[in-house]
Amino acid sequence: MEKMAEVNRQWLLRRRPTSNVTADDFEYSETSIPDSSSLRPGELILRNLLFLCAPTMRNWMEPPGNSLYPSIAIGDPVMAPAACEVVASAREGVPVGMRVTAFTSWQDYQRVAADHPVTPVPDGLSVTDIMTTYGLNARTAYFGLLKVGKPRAGDTLVVSGAAGSTGSVAAQIGKIMGCRVIGIAGGARKCAWLTGECGLDAAVDYRSGDVQEKLRELCPDGIDIFYDNVGGDILQAAIENMAKFGRIILCGQIATYTEGGPARGPNNMMRLIYGSVTMQGFLQADYEDETDAAFRQLRQWVDQGLIVHRADIRPGFERIPQTFAALFEGGNEGTLLAAVE
Amino acid sequence: MEKMAEVNRQWLLRRRPTSNVTADDFEYSETSIPDSSSLRPGELILRNLLFLCAPTMRNWMEPPGNSLYPSIAIGDPVMAPAACEVVASAREGVPVGMRVTAFTSWQDYQRVAADHPVTPVPDGLSVTDIMTTYGLNARTAYFGLLKVGKPRAGDTLVVSGAAGSTGSVAAQIGKIMGCRVIGIAGGARKCAWLTGECGLDAAVDYRSGDVQEKLRELCPDGIDIFYDNVGGDILQAAIENMAKFGRIILCGQIATYTEGGPARGPNNMMRLIYGSVTMQGFLQADYEDETDAAFRQLRQWVDQGLIVHRADIRPGFERIPQTFAALFEGGNEGTLLAAVE
Repeated sequence: MEKMAEVNRQWLLRRRPTSNVTADDFEYSETSIPDSSSLRPGELILRNLLFLCAPTMRNWMEPPGNSLYPSIAIGDPVMAPAACEVVASAREGVPVGMRVTAFTSWQDYQRVAADHPVTPVPDGLSVTDIMTTYGLNARTAYFGLLKVGKPRAGDTLVVSGAAGSTGSVAAQIGKIMGCRVIGIAGGARKCAWLTGECGLDAAVDYRSGDVQEKLRELCPDGIDIFYDNVGGDILQAAIENMAKFGRIILCGQIATYTEGGPARGPNNMMRLIYGSVTMQGFLQADYEDETDAAFRQLRQWVDQGLIVHRADIRPGFERIPQTFAALFEGGNEGTLLAAVE
Repeated sequence: MEKMAEVNRQWLLRRRPTSNVTADDFEYSETSIPDSSSLRPGELILRNLLFLCAPTMRNWMEPPGNSLYPSIAIGDPVMAPAACEVVASAREGVPVGMRVTAFTSWQDYQRVAADHPVTPVPDGLSVTDIMTTYGLNARTAYFGLLKVGKPRAGDTLVVSGAAGSTGSVAAQIGKIMGCRVIGIAGGARKCAWLTGECGLDAAVDYRSGDVQEKLRELCPDGIDIFYDNVGGDILQAAIENMAKFGRIILCGQIATYTEGGPARGPNNMMRLIYGSVTMQGFLQADYEDETDAAFRQLRQWVDQGLIVHRADIRPGFERIPQTFAALFEGGNEGTLLAAVE
C-alpha cells in the first residue's frame, strides 16, 4: 500500500489531439482530496491504483456530437478503465478496503455517484490479474472471437495487433478452438513471441514486407476469420484475402485513430459482396450477461497453460501521458498499464 | 416469334470502361449462326430473347485478376443473364422450343456447353415474368432481406436504389414483414411511385437535399436494416444513422462502379464498432438450394397483390449498349431489359 497522497493529482485533457497523441495534449493539475464526510448514500471514494491504456480512449478524446461513445470534456480528467481501492463508502456491500474495477479517470482519487458501477476483484486475484489476464481486453477477445467470429476447427484465423493485449488472447483462443492462427505484429521480437510462447502457426511483421502479399502466401485458401484491432491498410490487406463466407471481427482500428476525422474504412466493397463476407463491429459490453462465464472459462484456460499473457506496467503518475502515447507507437508489449505511484 | 436472323449479331467488349459506361466501349460484329449439325452430346444452341441489364455486369468488365467474379475478355460478346429459346438441342430434357433462363451473352445465338446450366421457364409464366417479377433480382431481394437482414416486425428498414429492380422488391417484402420502410431513389417521380403504388412509409429523393440529414429526421431511433444497392455517399449517410445492432445488407454498389478502381468503402468504422453494426455481402447464388421456395413465396405474394413490379423493356439489338448505359444514369424505372428484335 502506497502512502496517502496529500493532494489529488490529476491529468486533464488540455486539447483534443488532432493526429498523434502527445504529452502536450494533457495538463497536470492538483485539487484537494474528496471529502469523505460529505458522502451521500451510495457514493464512494476510490483510490486509483492501475489505469488501463486502451486505444479506444483516443476516440473518447474526439469532439462531442455522436451518441455512441463518450467525449471527454476539455479540462476534465481523462476517463479510463481502472483498478481501485475503496477508501470511503456509503454503498452497501462495497466496504472500505475492497478492491474494485471501474471506469474512473486520471487522478489519485475519484468520487463516484450512487449509480456508478464498480466490480469487486474476485478472491485470489491481484489487481494486475484483473486488469490483464482477466480484464476488459481479455473478455473483448473472448466475446469477439467466439460470438462474432464463430470459429470452427480448421478455420484460418488472422489476428492484427496480435502481440497486443486483446489480439494475443484472441489468437490463443483461436488455437484452443482448433484454428490455424496467423498473427500480424510490428517487429521481429513480437513475431517471435507469437510463434514461440503463444504457439501461433505463423506471424507477419507488418514493418517488413507487403502484408497483403504475405497473407496471400500464408493463406492460399483465404482467411476465414480476421480479428481486426488495427484497421486502415492492414484491414485492406485482409479484405483482399478473405475466403468465401469469411468473417471480419471489427474490434479496434488503432491505425486510423491518429489520422484525424472519422476512422477511414476499407475499399473494394465488391470483395465483400462477391465473397459473401461479413464485417461486424461489437463491444464486450454487448455480452455483459455472460461476463462470469467468460471469466470462468478464461481462468480455466490460463490454469491449463493454454493462454499466456504479458503485461507492460509503467509506474509513475507523472508519466501517464507518455505511457498512454506509447500505445500508438507500438512501443508496448502486451497489456499496457499505468501504475499510480 | 421473330424472323430467323441470317447472321449472328454480337456486341463485343471493345475496351474496359474506365469510368462511365459508354456505347464506344462496345463494338458491333456479325458472325455466322452456330451450326446445329455439329452439336456434341449435352450441347445446346439458344436464341437470346431478353437480356437483363444488371449493374454488377459493370464489374465483369474490369480487368481479370480476382478469383471472385468473371472478367469478360476484350473482344468477347458481353456476358449477361438472359431469357432464351432452345433452337437446337443435344441435351436430354431440354427440347427445341423450350424457353429457359441462362447466362449467355450479347448476341443472337449462343452455343452452350454440356455443363452450362439452363433453367426452364415455369409453366404459365412469360419470359418477361421470369426476368422481372420472379427473376434474379427478385430472388436477390428475397434472400438478401430475409437471410442477411433478418427483419423483425417494427424494424426500420431503409432501401437504397429503392425504385430499382431489386430495391423495390426488397422494400415491399420489408412491408410484408411488418417493417417501417423508407426508400431512397432519384427524382420525385420514383419517390411518388414508392410511397404510392409500393406502399412505402416514406421516400427520400437523393437528388434534392442531404440524405444523411433526411434519414436522421425520418429515423429518429436509427436504421435497423439498411438494404444497400448503391454504396458510396448513400452508404455513408446510412452508416451515420444506424441503430445499435443494425444490419447493413451489401447487395450492390452501383454508385462506385463507374468511379474506376476497387469500389470505395465507407468511413467511420467506429460507428460500426460502437454500434455493433453488421455489414454483410451476399449473392443470391449462396441460397441456390432455396430457389424453388423463394419462387413459390414470391408468386404467392404477387398473386395477393403484395408486390408490384415495374419493367422497363427497351427493344432493339442495335441499342443494347445504350440501354445498358442508362442503368448508371438512373434512367430506368424498374427492371431494365434489352429485348432482342
